[in-house]
Amino acid sequence: MDLESVKRLLENGQGTENESSINSLPTRLFDPFILQGLHVDLVEPGRLICSMKVPPRLLNNGNFLHGGAMASLVDLVGSAAIFSTGAPNSGVSVEINVSYLDAAYADEEIEIECKVLRVGKSVGVVSVEIRKKKTGKIIAQGRHTKYLLVRSKI
Amino acid sequence: MDLESVKRLLENGQGTENESSINSLPTRLFDPFILQGLHVDLVEPGRLICSMKVPPRLLNNGNFLHGGAMASLVDLVGSAAIFSTGAPNSGVSVEINVSYLDAAYADEEIEIECKVLRVGKSVGVVSVEIRKKKTGKIIAQGRHTKYLLVRSKI
Amino acid sequence: MDLESVKRLLENGQGTENESSINSLPTRLFDPFILQGLHVDLVEPGRLICSMKVPPRLLNNGNFLHGGAMASLVDLVGSAAIFSTGAPNSGVSVEINVSYLDAAYADEEIEIECKVLRVGKSVGVVSVEIRKKKTGKIIAQGRHTKYLLVRSKI
Amino acid sequence: MDLESVKRLLENGQGTENESSINSLPTRLFDPFILQGLHVDLVEPGRLICSMKVPPRLLNNGNFLHGGAMASLVDLVGSAAIFSTGAPNSGVSVEINVSYLDAAYADEEIEIECKVLRVGKSVGVVSVEIRKKKTGKIIAQGRHTKYLLVRSKI
Repeated sequence: MDLESVKRLLENGQGTENESSINSLPTRLFDPFILQGLHVDLVEPGRLICSMKVPPRLLNNGNFLHGGAMASLVDLVGSAAIFSTGAPNSGVSVEINVSYLDAAYADEEIEIECKVLRVGKSVGVVSVEIRKKKTGKIIAQGRHTKYLLVRSKI
Repeated sequence: MDLESVKRLLENGQGTENESSINSLPTRLFDPFILQGLHVDLVEPGRLICSMKVPPRLLNNGNFLHGGAMASLVDLVGSAAIFSTGAPNSGVSVEINVSYLDAAYADEEIEIECKVLRVGKSVGVVSVEIRKKKTGKIIAQGRHTKYLLVRSKI
Repeated sequence: MDLESVKRLLENGQGTENESSINSLPTRLFDPFILQGLHVDLVEPGRLICSMKVPPRLLNNGNFLHGGAMASLVDLVGSAAIFSTGAPNSGVSVEINVSYLDAAYADEEIEIECKVLRVGKSVGVVSVEIRKKKTGKIIAQGRHTKYLLVRSKI
Repeated sequence: MDLESVKRLLENGQGTENESSINSLPTRLFDPFILQGLHVDLVEPGRLICSMKVPPRLLNNGNFLHGGAMASLVDLVGSAAIFSTGAPNSGVSVEINVSYLDAAYADEEIEIECKVLRVGKSVGVVSVEIRKKKTGKIIAQGRHTKYLLVRSKI
């Protein structure tokens, strides 16, 4: 194994024209970069169902939905579900975990379901499941734990 | 609490000009979107240290490095560390978890250290720590578990 | 804070008569120590519901069901659920995670529900939820990932 | 696969003489059941090293240290490490995760090292590593997140 290739893997594309176009992206683009195209199908206090067609920008090198993108969906959609319970704010993340179970390909319709497991005065926990909309097959399941009393410091 | 505002939170910006510019982003942009600006400082078999100045595009609404971006770093840099051991491929993700411990602000220098905990014939596990470069204070710690025998299906 | 008290906390009871009675416990007592009193209410391929009255031996110092005991239930009952799919063996553990959401007190009836999320040729993942039987309130939710091709080494 | 055998797997031994001896075990035995034989080798604020000979009672059916026992060590020893920082109490568990990397056999000497990653006013996180004492090979690595402001409710 060539250690230089590990370096290339991570630094790949730097110094190309791709670089300047990425560097010129606007600030705080992360949320829309992940969420653009997502539709909220149902929202109840503590429960949220969204759907989305896997966008080409979120694919990995294997041409399926990136694991980091799925972790980001667990983060963002899970936070919104905690907010839906009437929590005063959506807090800060304490812990996120995701199990990856299947692949979702470009333009495949996925469904994201969140169930809030608990919201107390200071800690909220939500379970998030990403499924193939057509078959219901689970693509990923995760949990997101947030600390809600965010005035000063955790 | 207004359930409509949860919907707006997630669908925010759709239908604006932001939308078309995001939709026109190239395919498989996820890796460079996360990694652009990262520098590999050290690579040994099973150990990897990188550094990066927190780029404005990866900020969240609180103006610090997005939790989803940190999970994506655990994914991507952790995968490269597993690859550095000489594993035949970097496999597919089985599980990612991240504990969030502190905030990293725009242009702050961060350091990402990966230690491979185990690479067997079929399962690899790597621990990833994100720190403030100046003080060494831990911002996040996570683990990434990969399945390495990817020929057909898990 | 007295560092000596941390030592006492962990080494507490050693050198007392408790010690010899624990040291004389039979080998491989762990499974029955956790499971004694558990009843399987439903078993289908990939789905399992059990119930149990919280036994006094599994309480923590706060007098509610010990977090380690709940993690052990996620381990053991989750393994049985993976086995119920017809997997050739119940494999070895790769990862366990548990979120703790509420307390279960002595003699309270709890229900443990497992849903297998995926069983492939080599990796199985199961979601485990522990609830108060009376109210359905969630006490803990976890996931257990197992590697199933256990002939030689992972 | 015989669903009846899943039931037997979990209810095994009930109705035998083992049952009455387990039912007669004292209340809150969990901590000493796990910790008996553990020795604290080093304690500093936020750092803790312990060692232990794997006791026969904590073996699984494969005759190596039970995954549930290791999760319980992450719970208990990790809690003590958080307590060692001077936290007013050791709090309640929010989340535990463990990656299993190798097996530890009966009478093998193991070392448990805890490093507190953060202790704030309300949330504490500790990383726990279980290793073979002789070789330093990692057997398991986990994290334990606790909520520290335990007066009323989380």
